[in-house]
Amino acid sequence: MYSNSLEKFFKKSNITIGDRINIECDKGTFEGLLMPRTYENDIIVLKLDNGYNIGLNSKGAKIKLVEKTVKKIKEEKPEIHKGEIAIFGCGGTIASKVEYKTGAVYPAISPQELKAAFPQLNNIATIHTKQIFSLFSEDLTVKHWQIIADAIIKEMKEGVKGIVLMHGTDVMHYSAAAISFMLQNLKVPIIFVGAQRSSDRPSSDNEINLLNAVYTAKQDFAEVALCMHANTNDDFCYLHRGVRVRKLHTSRRDAFKSVNTLPIAKVDYKNNKFEVLNHFKTRDSKRETKIDTRMSDNVTMVYFYPGMKPEFLKKLRDYDGIVIIGTGLGHVATNPFNDKNTKSLVPEIKSLIDSNIPVVMAPQTIYGRLDMKVYTAGRILSDLGVIGDGCDWLPEVAYVKLAWVLGHTKNMKKIREEMLTNMVGELSERSILF
Amino acid sequence: MYSNSLEKFFKKSNITIGDRINIECDKGTFEGLLMPRTYENDIIVLKLDNGYNIGLNSKGAKIKLVEKTVKKIKEEKPEIHKGEIAIFGCGGTIASKVEYKTGAVYPAISPQELKAAFPQLNNIATIHTKQIFSLFSEDLTVKHWQIIADAIIKEMKEGVKGIVLMHGTDVMHYSAAAISFMLQNLKVPIIFVGAQRSSDRPSSDNEINLLNAVYTAKQDFAEVALCMHANTNDDFCYLHRGVRVRKLHTSRRDAFKSVNTLPIAKVDYKNNKFEVLNHFKTRDSKRETKIDTRMSDNVTMVYFYPGMKPEFLKKLRDYDGIVIIGTGLGHVATNPFNDKNTKSLVPEIKSLIDSNIPVVMAPQTIYGRLDMKVYTAGRILSDLGVIGDGCDWLPEVAYVKLAWVLGHTKNMKKIREEMLTNMVGELSERSILF
Repeated sequence: MYSNSLEKFFKKSNITIGDRINIECDKGTFEGLLMPRTYENDIIVLKLDNGYNIGLNSKGAKIKLVEKTVKKIKEEKPEIHKGEIAIFGCGGTIASKVEYKTGAVYPAISPQELKAAFPQLNNIATIHTKQIFSLFSEDLTVKHWQIIADAIIKEMKEGVKGIVLMHGTDVMHYSAAAISFMLQNLKVPIIFVGAQRSSDRPSSDNEINLLNAVYTAKQDFAEVALCMHANTNDDFCYLHRGVRVRKLHTSRRDAFKSVNTLPIAKVDYKNNKFEVLNHFKTRDSKRETKIDTRMSDNVTMVYFYPGMKPEFLKKLRDYDGIVIIGTGLGHVATNPFNDKNTKSLVPEIKSLIDSNIPVVMAPQTIYGRLDMKVYTAGRILSDLGVIGDGCDWLPEVAYVKLAWVLGHTKNMKKIREEMLTNMVGELSERSILF
Repeated sequence: MYSNSLEKFFKKSNITIGDRINIECDKGTFEGLLMPRTYENDIIVLKLDNGYNIGLNSKGAKIKLVEKTVKKIKEEKPEIHKGEIAIFGCGGTIASKVEYKTGAVYPAISPQELKAAFPQLNNIATIHTKQIFSLFSEDLTVKHWQIIADAIIKEMKEGVKGIVLMHGTDVMHYSAAAISFMLQNLKVPIIFVGAQRSSDRPSSDNEINLLNAVYTAKQDFAEVALCMHANTNDDFCYLHRGVRVRKLHTSRRDAFKSVNTLPIAKVDYKNNKFEVLNHFKTRDSKRETKIDTRMSDNVTMVYFYPGMKPEFLKKLRDYDGIVIIGTGLGHVATNPFNDKNTKSLVPEIKSLIDSNIPVVMAPQTIYGRLDMKVYTAGRILSDLGVIGDGCDWLPEVAYVKLAWVLGHTKNMKKIREEMLTNMVGELSERSILF
């Protein structure tokens, strides 16, 4: 935010972040779009028409509104006509258009607008849309996952046939995992979808991703999954299990990969193809959906690195649970040779577990299964009570699962039992070679 | 370690960790191998012949040595005959044989023994060997990287033609990066090599990895690289640049992958093939090697996750520098929409940077390039002074580089400048599609 006095001035002058303004100041006269500040400051940041941002001192400057570029996003009224498939908007690039062009900061397309933009949607299914919230996904918290889950529950009660969630890609795999644990034994599919490139770019992937997601939501399929570009062509999408997928590239459209398993299906709405690649649950109207949205918002995840000091772990005593992203088969420094240049993390981990703070291991290698029986370090950690031996979960999934388990029990034995039980496909019995 | 009184008793009775002992106690009489404890305790852990470990109370127990299974690893005397290639032992699975069979805890094969085990080595090059230390790699610290670098410098002064470093795989890529920054502009190759399976397993990869590494050390090549299994067959190895490689599977023999670039070469000593896949520096006897082994041992690396609390970062003020493994193109929670359920990390990051603690961004996606100009979160962090926009480095490499840069400067401007300068191939100008 800007300083109090600036914020007051903006309000008085009807200037909102993203509006075109003119500033006369000590550096000269500038026109551009007002950019946001998230820490208090008297420096005004303008996005100039050449694309660069400039910081200008507001003290003594003359500031004028040139053009209102920003229309307030209206609260959408729920549509009266209910379609088979609900499209929820949660923000992210898939619903973001203005960002590039004007420098404005919020995802600008509502699900309703997207529906209007892609009339092909109506050829696939009858739909209705709802804006849940509009955030970039790195800002999401446990609370947002609960808001999403509550909206899904409401739709399911009203008899929807499938739900598509438009979501930012950065933490979409965390959110898909959270919903997977909160809503188990589904009767209908819940399909997360995002875009790596916003809709005003020619290479945008939002159309093919969205249309394939809606197509998937109509299939005989009833799990939480994520539908995204499969390759660099615009051919088809992969459907990934919500607890088995991870963003593995900063920018490519095929950034999402199923890890330690195959995608569930190859999806190609254009050719009406849903090519099954892996097992999945089909719809069953008699199935009883298990709803539990309780989740701890006080879990942390730490990344082990060589030279990590025991003091690092000592500072984590305020958390309800800890995921350690360890090396190899599930290791951190245990110093079994009593090397004088190494500090073992074992006493701190023991002390955390003794204080009833569960410590869970996850692999830094991303791919593969933990095996804490092979090497001394793994055995020592396993003997201490670190949870994870034999697990092939992703760090992100271990984090979300631990938060969810801690939402309904603090009993260390129960926590271990639940963590090591495969609930929604997040753990597999044996590794498959890929 | 065991309790003081137990340790004294073991010493008096000539019992060492790994020895076969007999215990008569309240639970019965047991025979097995004495296992290590890294926290103080009166419970003796035995590895039984059926492979299971058992914890026995030592209070009132009768303990007898049955068999000394452990010979102390002798300090190897430097060999008088100097070969062309030096093989250094640093521990790890490649030099580990006893582990599985007896439960003893230390890598058991010295480079000399390995040389004896693989007489084919002599067909490739004349060699000499040296044990630097013998640790599993997750126990390594900055100090060990300096010990390795010093040993390399000594060998280079004595005119060695190439160096092969046998190393644990868990953090081998961190070590290869550290040596890459400490010893720049090399005249000879430094080849890291490890094994994913120990030499007593039929599927061990130590032979092909070691022989290809020694073969590589003889080539017209002069960089720090890592030579490991390329696929699940025993065909050939890939040579990876030391600052561009990462362990990406817990157990597969082809766990190491070059990231955001191609491997340097396909290496196949059997068919005398060194097939070039990427650019590299060849030998040049006139080149001046730049040696700087100074490195901060006080850098930390944190993994952003949705819901991370500002307090998490507040506890990092004692560090000289911080790497944040962010989402997507380089993001953490910045809450530009002032959402009531989100806490921005911006004030804490600003406060760290204002205290002259450099904050560096690295990608959670592993693959791809950071671009902190596309989204608001990236712009806010970039404006604050977070270092990383445009970089395609690995988190591990960013961590090692920051520690190395902090070894010789605390000047924030100089740190930024050095971090953003490509020194040894850790950054590339443009992304290549893979």
